[in-house]
Amino acid sequence: MHTNSPLRVLGITGSLRAASFNTALLSAAAELLPPEMTLEIIDLADLPMFNVDTEKPFPESVAQFREKIAIADAVLISTPEYNTSISGVLKNALEWASRAPQPPFTNKPVAIMGASTGVFGTARAQIVLRQVLTHIGALVLPKPEVMVPKAQEAFDEDGKLVNETTRGFLRDLLIALAAWTRRVKE
Amino acid sequence: MHTNSPLRVLGITGSLRAASFNTALLSAAAELLPPEMTLEIIDLADLPMFNVDTEKPFPESVAQFREKIAIADAVLISTPEYNTSISGVLKNALEWASRAPQPPFTNKPVAIMGASTGVFGTARAQIVLRQVLTHIGALVLPKPEVMVPKAQEAFDEDGKLVNETTRGFLRDLLIALAAWTRRVKE
Repeated sequence: MHTNSPLRVLGITGSLRAASFNTALLSAAAELLPPEMTLEIIDLADLPMFNVDTEKPFPESVAQFREKIAIADAVLISTPEYNTSISGVLKNALEWASRAPQPPFTNKPVAIMGASTGVFGTARAQIVLRQVLTHIGALVLPKPEVMVPKAQEAFDEDGKLVNETTRGFLRDLLIALAAWTRRVKE
Repeated sequence: MHTNSPLRVLGITGSLRAASFNTALLSAAAELLPPEMTLEIIDLADLPMFNVDTEKPFPESVAQFREKIAIADAVLISTPEYNTSISGVLKNALEWASRAPQPPFTNKPVAIMGASTGVFGTARAQIVLRQVLTHIGALVLPKPEVMVPKAQEAFDEDGKLVNETTRGFLRDLLIALAAWTRRVKE
């Protein structure tokens, strides 16, 4: 990777809800992206439940998911908080991504963020997500932390992030992820 | 519930693998069950991925899963540890179980246990599971803790629990769950 080549970022939303605030947060990231970055956003709807008995070979949707992570320069995950932790949907995807051969999160720069309608803004889920990602070999961006509480007030009815403070935090996160990606890759 | 009526326990395995040590641990529980208990063991293979958009009405498999919890006097969960936490499969099931109306884990006595091939015996996953269950209203049995490390040595080739020490721990857990269920229900 040359220092000035574009950084391909894979955005993963941990929620399957069509009007998900976490998917909307990734859309906001696309809007605020530094010029040096590209962002592809995916959801996890096509992944089957993880079962070791079914991994040889990986189901096609799993192979594609792993390949998207593998070819990305960095990953940006937006997680909901369900019952104090990350969604089962997201955890299940991380299971598939953690398996040999060549688990694709190994040494992968990853930034995390999240939005919730409550006041904690996914603070607890992000602790779990950071822990699990670190365990599977990802290089998780240490700072800044982006937690969006009261998401129903931060986004408008069309899912556009309108809270200016949050937009600033998100912009800072993306710039930090770009720097982190170049730093740990070189 | 009369003090001497049988206790119906629902056993849930967090792994989908056919030869899962956690499913085998539930089978061992069936074998060691106190006479006052009955145990039905289920897996989570039929549950779809949680999506708020698809919960009205609940999918049939979800409604059945919730009903099985609701009518049980107690629940016994055997969890694998995947990447320092519970499986996505199990977390996803707990999402479905956590939703209104009448989330079925509310005030439900629950015991947790787990088996792994490593040396920690699901210690980390159980911390997460206890936390999540408590959040969704379950009354989680405080003690004893049953963690089965090096499961490939504790079970024989037919999946029978042959380690006598572990069998004793499991027997103690079931007796404690019976007492806990009567205690918190009365």
